[in-house]
Amino acid sequence: MTAQPNPETGAAVKAADRAHVFHSWSAQELIDPLAVAGAKGSYFWDYEGRRYLDFTSGLVFTNIGHQHPKVVAAIQEQAGRMATFAPAFAVEARSEAARLIAERTPGDLDKVFFTNGGADAVEHAVRMARLHTGRPKVLSAYRSYHGGTQQTINLTGDPRRWASDSGTAGVVHFWAPFLYRSRFYAQTQEQECARALEHLETTIAFEGPATIAAIVLETVPGTAGVMPPPPGYLAGVRELCDKHGIVFVLDEVMAGFGRTGTWFAADLYDVVPDLMTFAKGVNSGYVPLGGVAISGAIAETFARRPYPGGLTYSGHPLACAAAVATINVMAEEGIVENAARLGESVVGPALRGLAERHPSVGEVRGVGMFWALELVRNRETREPLIPYDATGEAAAPMAAFAAAAKAEGLWPFVNMNRTHVVPPCTVSEAELKEGLAALDSALSVADGFTDRP
Amino acid sequence: MTAQPNPETGAAVKAADRAHVFHSWSAQELIDPLAVAGAKGSYFWDYEGRRYLDFTSGLVFTNIGHQHPKVVAAIQEQAGRMATFAPAFAVEARSEAARLIAERTPGDLDKVFFTNGGADAVEHAVRMARLHTGRPKVLSAYRSYHGGTQQTINLTGDPRRWASDSGTAGVVHFWAPFLYRSRFYAQTQEQECARALEHLETTIAFEGPATIAAIVLETVPGTAGVMPPPPGYLAGVRELCDKHGIVFVLDEVMAGFGRTGTWFAADLYDVVPDLMTFAKGVNSGYVPLGGVAISGAIAETFARRPYPGGLTYSGHPLACAAAVATINVMAEEGIVENAARLGESVVGPALRGLAERHPSVGEVRGVGMFWALELVRNRETREPLIPYDATGEAAAPMAAFAAAAKAEGLWPFVNMNRTHVVPPCTVSEAELKEGLAALDSALSVADGFTDRP
Repeated sequence: MTAQPNPETGAAVKAADRAHVFHSWSAQELIDPLAVAGAKGSYFWDYEGRRYLDFTSGLVFTNIGHQHPKVVAAIQEQAGRMATFAPAFAVEARSEAARLIAERTPGDLDKVFFTNGGADAVEHAVRMARLHTGRPKVLSAYRSYHGGTQQTINLTGDPRRWASDSGTAGVVHFWAPFLYRSRFYAQTQEQECARALEHLETTIAFEGPATIAAIVLETVPGTAGVMPPPPGYLAGVRELCDKHGIVFVLDEVMAGFGRTGTWFAADLYDVVPDLMTFAKGVNSGYVPLGGVAISGAIAETFARRPYPGGLTYSGHPLACAAAVATINVMAEEGIVENAARLGESVVGPALRGLAERHPSVGEVRGVGMFWALELVRNRETREPLIPYDATGEAAAPMAAFAAAAKAEGLWPFVNMNRTHVVPPCTVSEAELKEGLAALDSALSVADGFTDRP
Repeated sequence: MTAQPNPETGAAVKAADRAHVFHSWSAQELIDPLAVAGAKGSYFWDYEGRRYLDFTSGLVFTNIGHQHPKVVAAIQEQAGRMATFAPAFAVEARSEAARLIAERTPGDLDKVFFTNGGADAVEHAVRMARLHTGRPKVLSAYRSYHGGTQQTINLTGDPRRWASDSGTAGVVHFWAPFLYRSRFYAQTQEQECARALEHLETTIAFEGPATIAAIVLETVPGTAGVMPPPPGYLAGVRELCDKHGIVFVLDEVMAGFGRTGTWFAADLYDVVPDLMTFAKGVNSGYVPLGGVAISGAIAETFARRPYPGGLTYSGHPLACAAAVATINVMAEEGIVENAARLGESVVGPALRGLAERHPSVGEVRGVGMFWALELVRNRETREPLIPYDATGEAAAPMAAFAAAAKAEGLWPFVNMNRTHVVPPCTVSEAELKEGLAALDSALSVADGFTDRP
């Protein structure tokens, strides 16, 4: 875990990046990507020798941390044996990954369709639901993210949808429960839950139950703000789906594979969807992989009728071998349990402590290694520290907060007016304490932007 | 390159596959996937010890053959150094892959947006075109394949589109040139080319040039039948795009990276698109990777305005390291030249020879290591050996042909009434001769289904 300075190489990497790499979600000339030299466990470092504690897990995907030696070895072994093979064959790593996933998914989600990532997993889940039901529409929530392809960005409920929000039909957005910014004038979680279900039920009634193929929800919405739903909500959605023959799709791309301190977030709520999408944590993103776990009833629809979808790298052997090793390592090393234990005993109490001391913290939410701090200008009005979808100058308070964290050696996850605490699920108590201390210091910078600092 | 029998392991692999793997484009209970034990170069083998010469390159992606030792070593090395990292950073393998690709793409396609595969590459190309032009519609061709996500399957011009052909707006299909089954009553390639351009020009006029964001074409359509366009066609499309401010997208997912005996098929026609999509051959599919090469003008659109698209694994380090090694190996070992030379000196003449002897062969088309035999019931009427989109009993003649090839140790690429000859670009003359002899024998079976055998 060393960080040897090597600024010449760093400059060359940066120059080629600036000349030739087109980056996601960015104005290409307004970004200044840090050149990263290496990473190990919960840390990464640049070519100047600066080391950062990673409270982002990349984009919340390296659940086992960087460069886990057993998973690296498994990738190396599989690369030497069979790096790739076409999807129409039976391949050992593919079979074993599917078996290990099906063993852990709730209920009868026993078949796995593999994709390259989360977006195409959701693409295929929507297709399966439409063909299974013969219905056109899909309901999804505001404050959600489901992927960057046309169909999945259209399902998404954040501003990234807007630029691409034509050319796709059949998606209806509704409001999911979120007490801190309740759309239902609720005072308690019980009220929020009941009213959110009433809202959904009425929306279904007015859209026409027989036109709705699926309801797609992140079990715990991720980038939109880590909002664990109130007890009873998902069970209520399950009931509405059953009543109207609607396919219930849970998107566990970010929440799945240990992030919430359980194998799947659905386990927290004892709910079984009809389709469950995954990616990221399934192999910690060491090799691109995603997929859909499929119920018996939906698999039956495509038992003797072809499923009209597919992709060249479905069940990619190298990606599947990384999944096999990741799942086995997570089980052997108690990584899911580590996330649950340290989330409850360390992160939760510490963040609640920070909230008491820092007027910029409006709310603390989360579970496992999946937490958000909602930063506000004013705790009483709950006005966000920066406006919704702010950029440039308007976003300066959050930029200042992030810069302060980085100066303390902490790489924070920042989205709009929130910072998420989403370190690897392998993080140690000492690392958490180091990161939480840096966060404490950076929050003092955020406090400076509140109405009453 | 051994094929040691190990039927017990094969049975276990197969059993787990049947229990848990949901396969692409398939009725799950009607398929019987072969369990593959290993692969090397142009061959793969099963657990019974049967070895097959691979005339498919998987799904036309292992352009450097199976398990190229230098690319395997590069993957192993990168896995040990940095398997993955988030897309917002500059990373050596990502920078170098982008640089090597930009060095080879035609014209000023100097920026690279990386995706996980071909479908999301086309998804993002379409989005870039729509935002660059501010126009909604996209034109694509019948007899094409562009991917399995909602937007790309809707662009596709084969029966795989039909089941998902609602929920996406703004795609218009037109007819591209294909003299053997001319939609323009043409007798010569010159006539076909001129009329196809007239057809496209009229379609643009009636759709409204100011409503059209992009024309998307496979440079050489692949799965739809390996149909190299007549000289002048793509230049004519380029002219129409320039005249009307339409973005010209060439899809080189299958045709690119050596398949046609040039780095890109666009090189064959000396045409420069505004966006070019790639995947498959870029790293021979050893790790999932795709992307879009972007012109200066389109990159400029997103220089100070954010590009509203992205994905977690954009520029995945392991995938990019495999691309770097693949491109370097292709250059050092003359793999593109090998495809060009053996395509012209061995495959073309041999297939034309088969066409003379076998009444089932209606036409031979191709270039490099990218060839199709169009199998027909009757050479004069050109009636396909099986009907368009036939399945089950109606497809029996092609199934019999494929079974005969496999019995001879040749794994053939079969799509509808065609067999494609698409071995790795590293194939040797001796391997080609072995495969062509097996093909000769299998075509005798196809001959039995013609009107006059």
